[in-house]
Amino acid sequence: MTKISISAYKWVPPFAQGLVRDLRVRWALEEAGLPYEEILLDVTQPRGEEYLKMQPYGQVPVYKEGDLVIFESAAIVMHIAEKTDWLMPADPVKRARTRSWMFSAMNTIEPHVMNLSLTDLFYPEESWSREARAVMVQGLEKRLNQLSTWLSGRDYLEDEFTAADLLMVTVLRTPRHTEFVKGNPVLHAYVSRCEARPAFARAFASQMRHFS
Amino acid sequence: MTKISISAYKWVPPFAQGLVRDLRVRWALEEAGLPYEEILLDVTQPRGEEYLKMQPYGQVPVYKEGDLVIFESAAIVMHIAEKTDWLMPADPVKRARTRSWMFSAMNTIEPHVMNLSLTDLFYPEESWSREARAVMVQGLEKRLNQLSTWLSGRDYLEDEFTAADLLMVTVLRTPRHTEFVKGNPVLHAYVSRCEARPAFARAFASQMRHFS
Repeated sequence: MTKISISAYKWVPPFAQGLVRDLRVRWALEEAGLPYEEILLDVTQPRGEEYLKMQPYGQVPVYKEGDLVIFESAAIVMHIAEKTDWLMPADPVKRARTRSWMFSAMNTIEPHVMNLSLTDLFYPEESWSREARAVMVQGLEKRLNQLSTWLSGRDYLEDEFTAADLLMVTVLRTPRHTEFVKGNPVLHAYVSRCEARPAFARAFASQMRHFS
Repeated sequence: MTKISISAYKWVPPFAQGLVRDLRVRWALEEAGLPYEEILLDVTQPRGEEYLKMQPYGQVPVYKEGDLVIFESAAIVMHIAEKTDWLMPADPVKRARTRSWMFSAMNTIEPHVMNLSLTDLFYPEESWSREARAVMVQGLEKRLNQLSTWLSGRDYLEDEFTAADLLMVTVLRTPRHTEFVKGNPVLHAYVSRCEARPAFARAFASQMRHFS
Protein backbone atom coordinates (compact mmCIF):
# COMPACT_ATOMS: atom_id res chain seq x y z
CA MET A 1 0.00 0.00 0.00
CA THR A 2 1.34 3.45 -0.93
CA LYS A 3 2.15 5.59 2.10
CA ILE A 4 -0.29 8.42 2.78
CA SER A 5 0.65 11.69 4.50
CA ILE A 6 -1.38 14.77 5.40
CA SER A 7 -0.30 18.19 6.64
CA ALA A 8 -1.83 19.67 9.78
CA TYR A 9 -0.97 22.24 12.45
CA LYS A 10 1.10 21.68 15.59
CA TRP A 11 -1.15 24.11 17.38
CA VAL A 12 -4.07 26.47 16.70
CA PRO A 13 -5.96 28.88 19.00
CA PRO A 14 -8.76 27.28 21.07
CA PHE A 15 -11.56 28.69 18.88
CA ALA A 16 -10.21 26.63 15.95
CA GLN A 17 -9.32 23.44 17.81
CA GLY A 18 -11.45 20.56 16.59
CA LEU A 19 -12.47 22.51 13.48
CA VAL A 20 -9.28 22.67 11.38
CA ARG A 21 -9.92 21.15 7.99
CA ASP A 22 -7.55 18.25 8.30
CA LEU A 23 -10.30 16.83 10.57
CA ARG A 24 -12.34 15.99 7.47
CA VAL A 25 -9.46 14.15 5.91
CA ARG A 26 -8.59 12.29 9.12
CA TRP A 27 -12.24 11.26 9.45
CA ALA A 28 -12.38 9.93 5.87
CA LEU A 29 -9.11 8.04 6.37
CA GLU A 30 -10.44 6.53 9.60
CA GLU A 31 -13.70 5.52 7.91
CA ALA A 32 -11.76 3.91 5.06
CA GLY A 33 -9.36 2.22 7.50
CA LEU A 34 -6.27 3.77 5.93
CA PRO A 35 -3.19 4.55 8.05
CA TYR A 36 -1.46 7.89 7.49
CA GLU A 37 1.45 10.03 8.59
CA GLU A 38 1.18 13.63 9.75
CA ILE A 39 3.38 16.49 8.60
CA LEU A 40 2.94 19.10 11.35
CA LEU A 41 3.31 22.79 10.47
CA ASP A 42 3.58 25.95 12.53
CA VAL A 43 0.44 28.06 11.93
CA THR A 44 2.31 31.26 12.82
CA GLN A 45 5.02 30.78 10.15
CA PRO A 46 4.71 31.48 6.41
CA ARG A 47 4.88 28.44 4.15
CA GLY A 48 7.95 27.90 1.97
CA GLU A 49 8.12 27.59 -1.80
CA GLU A 50 8.00 23.79 -1.77
CA TYR A 51 4.74 23.80 0.15
CA LEU A 52 3.17 26.51 -2.03
CA LYS A 53 3.85 24.35 -5.09
CA MET A 54 1.52 21.77 -3.55
CA GLN A 55 -0.94 24.20 -1.92
CA PRO A 56 -0.98 27.66 -3.55
CA TYR A 57 -2.70 29.31 -0.56
CA GLY A 58 -0.41 27.83 2.07
CA GLN A 59 -3.31 26.18 3.90
CA VAL A 60 -3.66 22.72 5.44
CA PRO A 61 -4.27 19.95 4.63
CA VAL A 62 -2.11 18.73 1.76
CA TYR A 63 -2.52 15.03 0.99
CA LYS A 64 0.29 12.98 -0.53
CA GLU A 65 0.05 9.42 -1.77
CA GLY A 66 2.96 8.49 -4.00
CA ASP A 67 2.85 10.88 -6.98
CA LEU A 68 -0.60 12.16 -6.04
CA VAL A 69 -0.65 15.59 -4.40
CA ILE A 70 -4.14 16.83 -3.54
CA PHE A 71 -5.22 20.05 -1.84
CA GLU A 72 -8.65 21.34 -0.71
CA SER A 73 -10.02 19.12 2.03
CA ALA A 74 -13.16 18.26 0.05
CA ALA A 75 -11.15 17.11 -2.98
CA ILE A 76 -9.07 14.94 -0.67
CA VAL A 77 -12.18 13.48 0.97
CA MET A 78 -13.59 12.71 -2.49
CA HIS A 79 -10.40 10.89 -3.42
CA ILE A 80 -10.38 8.81 -0.23
CA ALA A 81 -14.13 8.14 -0.52
CA GLU A 82 -13.63 6.62 -3.97
CA LYS A 83 -11.41 3.95 -2.42
CA THR A 84 -14.58 2.56 -0.78
CA ASP A 85 -18.00 1.86 -2.32
CA TRP A 86 -19.96 3.23 0.62
CA LEU A 87 -18.36 6.62 1.37
CA MET A 88 -18.84 7.09 -2.39
CA PRO A 89 -21.54 4.77 -3.73
CA ALA A 90 -20.63 2.88 -6.91
CA ASP A 91 -24.15 3.27 -8.35
CA PRO A 92 -24.00 6.25 -10.78
CA VAL A 93 -27.30 7.80 -9.62
CA LYS A 94 -26.33 7.66 -5.94
CA ARG A 95 -22.81 8.77 -6.73
CA ALA A 96 -24.13 11.84 -8.53
CA ARG A 97 -26.26 12.77 -5.51
CA THR A 98 -23.35 12.24 -3.12
CA ARG A 99 -21.16 14.56 -5.15
CA SER A 100 -23.97 17.14 -5.40
CA TRP A 101 -24.19 17.21 -1.62
CA MET A 102 -20.42 17.42 -1.25
CA PHE A 103 -20.33 20.60 -3.32
CA SER A 104 -23.45 21.78 -1.54
CA ALA A 105 -21.67 21.55 1.83
CA MET A 106 -18.69 23.47 0.44
CA ASN A 107 -20.39 26.12 -1.66
CA THR A 108 -23.98 26.56 -0.44
CA ILE A 109 -23.67 26.06 3.33
CA GLU A 110 -20.06 26.68 4.34
CA PRO A 111 -19.71 30.24 2.98
CA HIS A 112 -22.51 31.34 5.34
CA VAL A 113 -20.89 29.51 8.24
CA MET A 114 -17.53 31.14 7.45
CA ASN A 115 -19.18 34.56 7.54
CA LEU A 116 -20.54 33.91 11.00
CA SER A 117 -17.04 33.00 12.14
CA LEU A 118 -15.83 36.25 10.61
CA THR A 119 -18.22 38.46 12.56
CA ASP A 120 -18.24 36.44 15.80
CA LEU A 121 -14.66 35.22 16.13
CA PHE A 122 -12.53 37.64 14.12
CA TYR A 123 -14.40 40.97 14.43
CA PRO A 124 -16.66 40.65 17.49
CA GLU A 125 -15.93 44.18 18.74
CA GLU A 126 -16.14 46.17 15.50
CA SER A 127 -18.98 48.65 15.12
CA TRP A 128 -20.09 47.26 11.72
CA SER A 129 -19.99 43.67 12.87
CA ARG A 130 -23.34 43.52 14.66
CA GLU A 131 -25.30 44.86 11.69
CA ALA A 132 -23.33 42.74 9.23
CA ARG A 133 -24.03 39.74 11.43
CA ALA A 134 -27.78 40.25 11.14
CA VAL A 135 -27.45 39.98 7.37
CA MET A 136 -25.09 36.99 7.61
CA VAL A 137 -27.55 35.24 9.93
CA GLN A 138 -30.39 35.73 7.44
CA GLY A 139 -28.36 33.97 4.78
CA LEU A 140 -27.29 31.19 7.12
CA GLU A 141 -30.74 30.57 8.57
CA LYS A 142 -32.36 30.39 5.16
CA ARG A 143 -29.98 27.63 4.07
CA LEU A 144 -30.09 25.77 7.40
CA ASN A 145 -33.89 25.77 7.31
CA GLN A 146 -33.86 24.30 3.82
CA LEU A 147 -31.33 21.70 4.89
CA SER A 148 -33.37 20.91 7.99
CA THR A 149 -36.51 20.48 5.87
CA TRP A 150 -34.62 18.05 3.67
CA LEU A 151 -33.21 16.07 6.61
CA SER A 152 -36.52 15.89 8.42
CA GLY A 153 -37.42 12.18 8.62
CA ARG A 154 -34.06 11.10 7.21
CA ASP A 155 -30.96 9.81 8.95
CA TYR A 156 -28.55 11.03 6.27
CA LEU A 157 -28.55 13.33 3.24
CA GLU A 158 -29.39 10.34 1.05
CA ASP A 159 -30.11 6.70 2.02
CA GLU A 160 -26.85 5.86 3.78
CA PHE A 161 -23.94 7.67 5.42
CA THR A 162 -21.53 8.88 2.71
CA ALA A 163 -18.65 11.32 2.24
CA ALA A 164 -21.29 14.02 1.76
CA ASP A 165 -22.51 13.61 5.35
CA LEU A 166 -18.92 13.65 6.53
CA LEU A 167 -18.31 17.03 4.86
CA MET A 168 -21.69 18.49 5.83
CA VAL A 169 -21.20 17.59 9.49
CA THR A 170 -17.76 19.22 9.62
CA VAL A 171 -19.41 22.37 8.24
CA LEU A 172 -22.30 22.22 10.73
CA ARG A 173 -19.86 21.79 13.63
CA THR A 174 -18.34 25.20 12.97
CA PRO A 175 -21.05 27.45 14.48
CA ARG A 176 -20.69 25.55 17.76
CA HIS A 177 -20.55 28.87 19.66
CA THR A 178 -24.18 29.53 18.65
CA GLU A 179 -27.61 27.82 18.72
CA PHE A 180 -28.10 27.77 14.93
CA VAL A 181 -27.42 24.06 14.70
CA LYS A 182 -27.68 22.97 18.35
CA GLY A 183 -31.08 24.67 18.64
CA ASN A 184 -32.49 22.90 15.58
CA PRO A 185 -33.61 19.39 16.65
CA VAL A 186 -33.29 17.89 13.17
CA LEU A 187 -29.81 19.28 12.49
CA HIS A 188 -28.61 18.60 16.02
CA ALA A 189 -29.72 14.95 15.81
CA TYR A 190 -28.10 14.61 12.40
CA VAL A 191 -24.76 16.00 13.57
CA SER A 192 -24.86 13.88 16.74
CA ARG A 193 -25.67 10.74 14.75
CA CYS A 194 -22.65 11.23 12.51
CA GLU A 195 -20.32 12.34 15.30
CA ALA A 196 -21.19 9.14 17.18
CA ARG A 197 -19.29 7.12 14.56
CA PRO A 198 -16.11 5.60 16.02
CA ALA A 199 -14.12 6.89 13.03
CA PHE A 200 -15.11 10.46 13.92
CA ALA A 201 -13.97 10.00 17.52
CA ARG A 202 -10.59 8.69 16.36
CA ALA A 203 -10.15 11.53 13.88
CA PHE A 204 -11.11 14.15 16.45
CA ALA A 205 -8.73 12.69 19.02
CA SER A 206 -5.91 12.67 16.44
CA GLN A 207 -6.31 16.35 15.71
CA MET A 208 -6.80 17.42 19.33
CA ARG A 209 -3.90 15.37 20.69
CA HIS A 210 -1.41 17.91 19.32
CA PHE A 211 -3.04 20.90 20.98
CA SER A 212 -2.98 19.75 24.58
CA MET B 1 -27.53 9.42 -26.48
CA THR B 2 -29.58 10.11 -23.34
CA LYS B 3 -31.33 13.47 -23.45
CA ILE B 4 -29.83 16.16 -21.19
CA SER B 5 -31.82 19.00 -19.64
CA ILE B 6 -30.82 21.87 -17.36
CA SER B 7 -32.91 24.38 -15.45
CA ALA B 8 -32.27 28.11 -15.82
CA TYR B 9 -34.13 31.38 -15.36
CA LYS B 10 -36.39 33.11 -17.88
CA TRP B 11 -35.14 36.43 -16.62
CA VAL B 12 -32.86 37.86 -13.91
CA PRO B 13 -32.01 41.48 -12.98
CA PRO B 14 -29.22 43.07 -15.08
CA PHE B 15 -26.61 42.75 -12.28
CA ALA B 16 -26.93 38.95 -12.48
CA GLN B 17 -27.21 38.56 -16.25
CA GLY B 18 -24.26 36.61 -17.62
CA LEU B 19 -23.36 35.37 -14.11
CA VAL B 20 -26.16 32.92 -13.25
CA ARG B 21 -24.68 29.54 -12.46
CA ASP B 22 -26.24 27.65 -15.34
CA LEU B 23 -23.56 29.48 -17.39
CA ARG B 24 -20.94 27.05 -16.05
CA VAL B 25 -23.00 24.07 -17.05
CA ARG B 26 -23.80 25.48 -20.50
CA TRP B 27 -20.09 26.16 -21.00
CA ALA B 28 -19.11 22.60 -20.04
CA LEU B 29 -21.80 21.16 -22.31
CA GLU B 30 -20.59 23.34 -25.20
CA GLU B 31 -16.97 22.29 -24.59
CA ALA B 32 -18.02 18.63 -24.55
CA GLY B 33 -20.21 19.09 -27.64
CA LEU B 34 -23.36 17.83 -25.92
CA PRO B 35 -26.79 19.15 -26.91
CA TYR B 36 -29.24 19.98 -24.12
CA GLU B 37 -32.72 21.25 -23.42
CA GLU B 38 -33.57 24.15 -21.12
CA ILE B 39 -36.26 24.13 -18.44
CA LEU B 40 -36.90 27.84 -17.83
CA LEU B 41 -38.08 28.96 -14.38
CA ASP B 42 -39.46 32.22 -13.02
CA VAL B 43 -36.92 33.64 -10.54
CA THR B 44 -39.67 35.55 -8.70
CA GLN B 45 -41.77 32.44 -7.96
CA PRO B 46 -41.14 29.84 -5.23
CA ARG B 47 -40.20 26.36 -6.42
CA GLY B 48 -42.69 23.52 -6.05
CA GLU B 49 -42.22 20.26 -4.19
CA GLU B 50 -41.13 18.32 -7.27
CA TYR B 51 -38.28 20.73 -7.90
CA LEU B 52 -37.20 20.79 -4.25
CA LYS B 53 -36.85 17.00 -4.36
CA MET B 54 -34.17 17.51 -7.00
CA GLN B 55 -32.68 20.73 -5.62
CA PRO B 56 -33.31 21.23 -1.88
CA TYR B 57 -32.50 24.98 -1.99
CA GLY B 58 -34.67 25.73 -5.01
CA GLN B 59 -31.73 27.12 -6.99
CA VAL B 60 -30.73 26.65 -10.61
CA PRO B 61 -29.30 24.70 -12.31
CA VAL B 62 -30.64 21.18 -11.97
CA TYR B 63 -29.18 18.72 -14.49
CA LYS B 64 -31.11 15.69 -15.69
CA GLU B 65 -29.79 12.88 -17.84
CA GLY B 66 -32.02 9.83 -17.73
CA ASP B 67 -32.11 8.69 -14.10
CA LEU B 68 -29.28 11.02 -13.09
CA VAL B 69 -30.36 14.16 -11.24
CA ILE B 70 -27.49 16.42 -10.24
CA PHE B 71 -27.50 19.76 -8.44
CA GLU B 72 -24.73 22.24 -7.56
CA SER B 73 -23.22 23.66 -10.72
CA ALA B 74 -19.72 22.42 -9.88
CA ALA B 75 -20.92 18.85 -9.36
CA ILE B 76 -22.68 19.04 -12.73
CA VAL B 77 -19.55 20.42 -14.41
CA MET B 78 -17.51 17.58 -12.88
CA HIS B 79 -19.96 15.03 -14.27
CA ILE B 80 -19.88 16.54 -17.76
CA ALA B 81 -16.09 16.93 -17.63
CA GLU B 82 -15.69 13.20 -16.97
CA LYS B 83 -17.33 12.49 -20.32
CA THR B 84 -14.16 13.92 -21.94
CA ASP B 85 -10.51 13.20 -21.15
CA TRP B 86 -9.39 16.81 -21.44
CA LEU B 87 -11.91 18.77 -19.34
CA MET B 88 -11.06 16.09 -16.76
CA PRO B 89 -7.67 14.48 -17.51
CA ALA B 90 -7.60 10.69 -17.36
CA ASP B 91 -4.15 10.63 -15.75
CA PRO B 92 -4.74 10.20 -11.97
CA VAL B 93 -2.14 12.80 -10.91
CA LYS B 94 -3.55 15.46 -13.26
CA ARG B 95 -7.09 14.47 -12.38
CA ALA B 96 -6.38 14.97 -8.69
CA ARG B 97 -5.00 18.46 -9.34
CA THR B 98 -7.98 19.35 -11.54
CA ARG B 99 -10.39 18.35 -8.80
CA SER B 100 -8.35 20.23 -6.18
CA TRP B 101 -8.68 23.40 -8.24
CA MET B 102 -12.40 22.82 -8.78
CA PHE B 103 -13.02 22.78 -5.04
CA SER B 104 -10.60 25.65 -4.67
CA ALA B 105 -12.69 27.79 -7.02
CA MET B 106 -15.85 26.90 -5.10
CA ASN B 107 -14.63 27.02 -1.51
CA THR B 108 -11.49 29.19 -1.34
CA ILE B 109 -12.18 31.90 -3.94
CA GLU B 110 -15.94 32.10 -4.50
CA PRO B 111 -17.00 32.77 -0.89
CA HIS B 112 -14.94 36.00 -0.94
CA VAL B 113 -16.41 36.98 -4.30
CA MET B 114 -19.93 36.30 -2.99
CA ASN B 115 -19.26 38.58 -0.04
CA LEU B 116 -18.27 41.41 -2.34
CA SER B 117 -21.53 40.95 -4.21
CA LEU B 118 -23.33 41.09 -0.87
CA THR B 119 -21.90 44.46 0.15
CA ASP B 120 -21.80 46.03 -3.33
CA LEU B 121 -24.95 44.74 -5.00
CA PHE B 122 -27.34 43.82 -2.19
CA TYR B 123 -26.46 46.29 0.60
CA PRO B 124 -24.66 49.19 -1.09
CA GLU B 125 -26.44 51.86 0.97
CA GLU B 126 -26.31 50.31 4.44
CA SER B 127 -24.19 52.03 7.07
CA TRP B 128 -22.30 48.87 8.03
CA SER B 129 -21.62 47.88 4.46
CA ARG B 130 -18.62 50.13 3.79
CA GLU B 131 -16.69 48.92 6.82
CA ALA B 132 -17.66 45.31 6.24
CA ARG B 133 -16.53 45.71 2.65
CA ALA B 134 -13.03 46.72 3.73
CA VAL B 135 -12.75 43.43 5.62
CA MET B 136 -14.26 41.46 2.73
CA VAL B 137 -11.78 43.07 0.34
CA GLN B 138 -8.85 42.05 2.53
CA GLY B 139 -9.94 38.43 2.32
CA LEU B 140 -10.58 38.60 -1.41
CA GLU B 141 -7.31 40.36 -2.26
CA LYS B 142 -5.26 37.90 -0.24
CA ARG B 143 -6.66 34.96 -2.19
CA LEU B 144 -6.54 36.73 -5.58
CA ASN B 145 -2.89 37.65 -5.00
CA GLN B 146 -2.05 34.03 -4.22
CA LEU B 147 -3.94 32.88 -7.29
CA SER B 148 -2.21 35.52 -9.42
CA THR B 149 1.21 34.39 -8.12
CA TRP B 150 0.34 30.84 -9.10
CA LEU B 151 -0.90 31.83 -12.57
CA SER B 152 2.05 34.06 -13.29
CA GLY B 153 3.85 32.53 -16.30
CA ARG B 154 1.10 29.95 -16.83
CA ASP B 155 -1.76 29.86 -19.32
CA TYR B 156 -3.98 27.71 -17.12
CA LEU B 157 -4.17 26.45 -13.53
CA GLU B 158 -2.29 23.33 -14.59
CA ASP B 159 -0.79 22.41 -18.00
CA GLU B 160 -3.93 22.54 -20.13
CA PHE B 161 -7.41 24.04 -20.00
CA THR B 162 -9.66 21.86 -17.81
CA ALA B 163 -12.98 22.00 -15.97
CA ALA B 164 -11.10 23.72 -13.13
CA ASP B 165 -10.31 26.73 -15.34
CA LEU B 166 -13.92 26.77 -16.47
CA LEU B 167 -15.15 27.03 -12.87
CA MET B 168 -12.44 29.45 -11.76
CA VAL B 169 -13.18 31.83 -14.65
CA THR B 170 -16.90 31.89 -13.88
CA VAL B 171 -15.96 32.84 -10.31
CA LEU B 172 -13.51 35.55 -11.43
CA ARG B 173 -16.13 37.04 -13.77
CA THR B 174 -18.40 37.89 -10.84
CA PRO B 175 -16.60 41.00 -9.48
CA ARG B 176 -16.88 42.58 -12.94
CA HIS B 177 -18.15 45.82 -11.34
CA THR B 178 -14.71 46.28 -9.72
CA GLU B 179 -11.01 46.35 -10.69
CA PHE B 180 -10.00 43.38 -8.50
CA VAL B 181 -9.64 41.07 -11.48
CA LYS B 182 -9.61 43.52 -14.40
CA GLY B 183 -6.85 45.54 -12.71
CA ASN B 184 -4.62 42.48 -12.21
CA PRO B 185 -2.78 41.83 -15.51
CA VAL B 186 -2.22 38.13 -14.81
CA LEU B 187 -5.80 37.40 -13.77
CA HIS B 188 -7.27 39.59 -16.50
CA ALA B 189 -5.22 37.81 -19.18
CA TYR B 190 -6.21 34.43 -17.76
CA VAL B 191 -9.93 35.24 -17.76
CA SER B 192 -9.71 36.74 -21.26
CA ARG B 193 -7.84 33.69 -22.57
CA CYS B 194 -10.56 31.35 -21.31
CA GLU B 195 -13.46 33.59 -22.31
CA ALA B 196 -12.04 33.66 -25.87
CA ARG B 197 -12.97 30.00 -26.29
CA PRO B 198 -15.82 29.54 -28.79
CA ALA B 199 -17.64 27.28 -26.32
CA PHE B 200 -17.76 30.13 -23.80
CA ALA B 201 -19.21 32.50 -26.37
CA ARG B 202 -21.94 30.00 -27.25
CA ALA B 203 -22.76 29.35 -23.58
CA PHE B 204 -22.89 33.06 -22.78
CA ALA B 205 -25.14 33.76 -25.75
CA SER B 206 -27.46 30.91 -24.70
CA GLN B 207 -27.95 32.36 -21.24
CA MET B 208 -28.26 35.99 -22.36
CA ARG B 209 -30.66 35.26 -25.20
CA HIS B 210 -33.53 34.83 -22.71
CA PHE B 211 -32.97 38.16 -21.00
CA SER B 212 -33.24 40.49 -23.98
